[in-house]
Amino acid sequence: MDHIISIKEVSREEIDDILDRAAAIDQGIFDHDALAGKILAVLFFEPSTRTQMSFTAAMQRLGGTVINFGSVEASSIAKGETLADTIRVVSGYADAIVLRHPKEGASLFASEFSTVPVINAGDGAGQHPSQTLLDLFTIRQSMPLEGIDVGFLGDLRYGRTTHSLAFALSHYGVRIHTITPQGLELPPSLVHDLHEAGTEIVVHEHIDDIIPDLDVLYVTRIQRERFPDPGTYASIASWYRITPEVLTGVRDRFILMHPLPRVDEIDPAVDSLPCARYFQQAKNGVPIRMAMLQKVLP
Amino acid sequence: MDHIISIKEVSREEIDDILDRAAAIDQGIFDHDALAGKILAVLFFEPSTRTQMSFTAAMQRLGGTVINFGSVEASSIAKGETLADTIRVVSGYADAIVLRHPKEGASLFASEFSTVPVINAGDGAGQHPSQTLLDLFTIRQSMPLEGIDVGFLGDLRYGRTTHSLAFALSHYGVRIHTITPQGLELPPSLVHDLHEAGTEIVVHEHIDDIIPDLDVLYVTRIQRERFPDPGTYASIASWYRITPEVLTGVRDRFILMHPLPRVDEIDPAVDSLPCARYFQQAKNGVPIRMAMLQKVLP
Amino acid sequence: MDHIISIKEVSREEIDDILDRAAAIDQGIFDHDALAGKILAVLFFEPSTRTQMSFTAAMQRLGGTVINFGSVEASSIAKGETLADTIRVVSGYADAIVLRHPKEGASLFASEFSTVPVINAGDGAGQHPSQTLLDLFTIRQSMPLEGIDVGFLGDLRYGRTTHSLAFALSHYGVRIHTITPQGLELPPSLVHDLHEAGTEIVVHEHIDDIIPDLDVLYVTRIQRERFPDPGTYASIASWYRITPEVLTGVRDRFILMHPLPRVDEIDPAVDSLPCARYFQQAKNGVPIRMAMLQKVLP
Repeated sequence: MDHIISIKEVSREEIDDILDRAAAIDQGIFDHDALAGKILAVLFFEPSTRTQMSFTAAMQRLGGTVINFGSVEASSIAKGETLADTIRVVSGYADAIVLRHPKEGASLFASEFSTVPVINAGDGAGQHPSQTLLDLFTIRQSMPLEGIDVGFLGDLRYGRTTHSLAFALSHYGVRIHTITPQGLELPPSLVHDLHEAGTEIVVHEHIDDIIPDLDVLYVTRIQRERFPDPGTYASIASWYRITPEVLTGVRDRFILMHPLPRVDEIDPAVDSLPCARYFQQAKNGVPIRMAMLQKVLP
Repeated sequence: MDHIISIKEVSREEIDDILDRAAAIDQGIFDHDALAGKILAVLFFEPSTRTQMSFTAAMQRLGGTVINFGSVEASSIAKGETLADTIRVVSGYADAIVLRHPKEGASLFASEFSTVPVINAGDGAGQHPSQTLLDLFTIRQSMPLEGIDVGFLGDLRYGRTTHSLAFALSHYGVRIHTITPQGLELPPSLVHDLHEAGTEIVVHEHIDDIIPDLDVLYVTRIQRERFPDPGTYASIASWYRITPEVLTGVRDRFILMHPLPRVDEIDPAVDSLPCARYFQQAKNGVPIRMAMLQKVLP
Repeated sequence: MDHIISIKEVSREEIDDILDRAAAIDQGIFDHDALAGKILAVLFFEPSTRTQMSFTAAMQRLGGTVINFGSVEASSIAKGETLADTIRVVSGYADAIVLRHPKEGASLFASEFSTVPVINAGDGAGQHPSQTLLDLFTIRQSMPLEGIDVGFLGDLRYGRTTHSLAFALSHYGVRIHTITPQGLELPPSLVHDLHEAGTEIVVHEHIDDIIPDLDVLYVTRIQRERFPDPGTYASIASWYRITPEVLTGVRDRFILMHPLPRVDEIDPAVDSLPCARYFQQAKNGVPIRMAMLQKVLP
């Protein structure tokens, strides 16, 4: 595997292989010096603390090291350098590049100029494959992926995370349930793709209608700036807030996920429930990213 | 030892143990791979160059590695994440956390959410135990701690550093001498605590009154913003400035300390005197922090 | 070798030694643990992405680690600390210092206060020896340095990079050709020094007059802010732009160099020509800096 740009180009076999590797890593089964002497360039053109920290930790856990530009402002970008030139130069310094960029398609573009493997760590409205893989891994820690019922709650229109995860889940014959504010539904093109892949999508009015029949509920942030006025936002936000009450009567194996950071979407009183998996989910970023680094860095 | 939050909760035995370990480390007696494979998260919610650099160097000298968020602005904090959530996530990535935070009590709070040891690297007006330990270590390199005369010069009201050091010194039966501008005296509550601990405190008008009888003079910054007008500040600052003349007639074992950065408190002409220990003091941050990391990371 | 401050103080023998070491490193002939346990402080008082990243990569390739202050704003500088004090403190944490500073002479000044070797990574209009060495190394990968014809195109008045390189090339009996906009010629003092060193300098009106007789063309940025009005800048910039057409009829061994980042000086259509060496040149920063680190860190 050369680059990892989009989950769409990773086959189910490759996904399963990465999940299997991550599971072994999570058990402590890995070579602590596997990437000794290797350098990973972590190029973040926009901040993303947890992605940056967990890629860095993943590289270090395998014995490798990391270089980065202190901050975007401090970089040559400020001198007007093109992304193509930055990538060409940095691929002369490092053995692989992790790229975070605000523009969709930036990672694919970068991979065309890089002489070393590129991993997409999020490019605008585009892909963020390591997030998708750690989401899958988190579910698989609790139950087999095949045929489960997965609910998505919140902003499904702009949510890159949910789009990629829904797409990847379509390999496993899951049923998808959506609960969204008006205007923030799944984009028609994605609905089309999911149908093409044989995935059933069920639209629900309210979380209470479906919560007892879910195996997974994936909550995403509803961003204030999507709404015309603060009042509308506030009423929507409270309606979509997960509290212990909302979760009464869920299935035994039910788990609650969130890509974090959360703001008000999940009541802290939920944190101590056994179904709350969002911190575990964040933690899973390390073994998943270790598995990805091992894939691209032979 | 699980967390290191406040020097008040570290017993004299534990302090002595850390100082002994640091002394051995300073002699080169330590395992260079003691923390190989371990990751330290250095979370600084406000900048502190030397603390950050010396904790990082300490971790690296023991074979470990470090992760951090590039800058606070770049972190998830900007997205409204709570400290509790940040700590829970980061403790999934790292084996220990060093926390610097502008709010008093932040480290204790963080330790309640962390699944890994937390070391307080300064939280507002609160504690900064590694500074206290390196101060003690610097004194002990020149003389036994027991029964010495220690002068504190400058702002003793707001100076977190001096409060913690005075408290820790109370284990060793020292006598404390204070020389402060009006309004910047030791807080009554600390005076009370020190008296409770059996420490004698002597208040002096002027540094000349006591300098020949001191073993240690600990100078701190007098901050411009504490004064109503620049004129008052300027006259106070000049009055509290240490020059070679001020230091005539000091004891043979006398040493001069400062937590750095200094601005005008110490004349650079003093730097070459044998009693000037502030750069050594800064350097001692590395062995002390190595000893602390070894304590919390088994 | 203690410090590396200016290429002027590095003898031809030492230069050749560093180039030879870098050549071996580039072949993979080096001890991957040569600097294990050593710490390099990378102190950048102004941003320079590629210099920072390649020094960091160089240290890591040799098994060492790096500390830095996150950003200048985050550093003690903001608290008014002098450069002398910063250097004294940091030399207590690290085994060597790489310094980038906006003020000319800062590195020499720093070396007087440091207890560990200092490498100048650029100080204002002053020196930047690692850039010069990687430039020489890049040329030597294609041809012997002795007696070659080297053209410098662009702003030669303010270009620190070209000054140092021209000076270093004077060890090798090269002929220097300059093509510059009016007012941006080589400074008379440098012309004098080069003549003293026996270097012939030929001034040309236009790149076409000399391009067929060059072995190397070194292009530098022409900075917008040097010109009184945007119109003058635009016409000059287009006149000095390198396109494939400009390069017709060059010598077989001809190479095109640029210190990067480039903006408009070189047409991207040139990138795929075999003579284009600027990305290789950037990449050479790693083996050259590895060789320099090995020189100063025994």
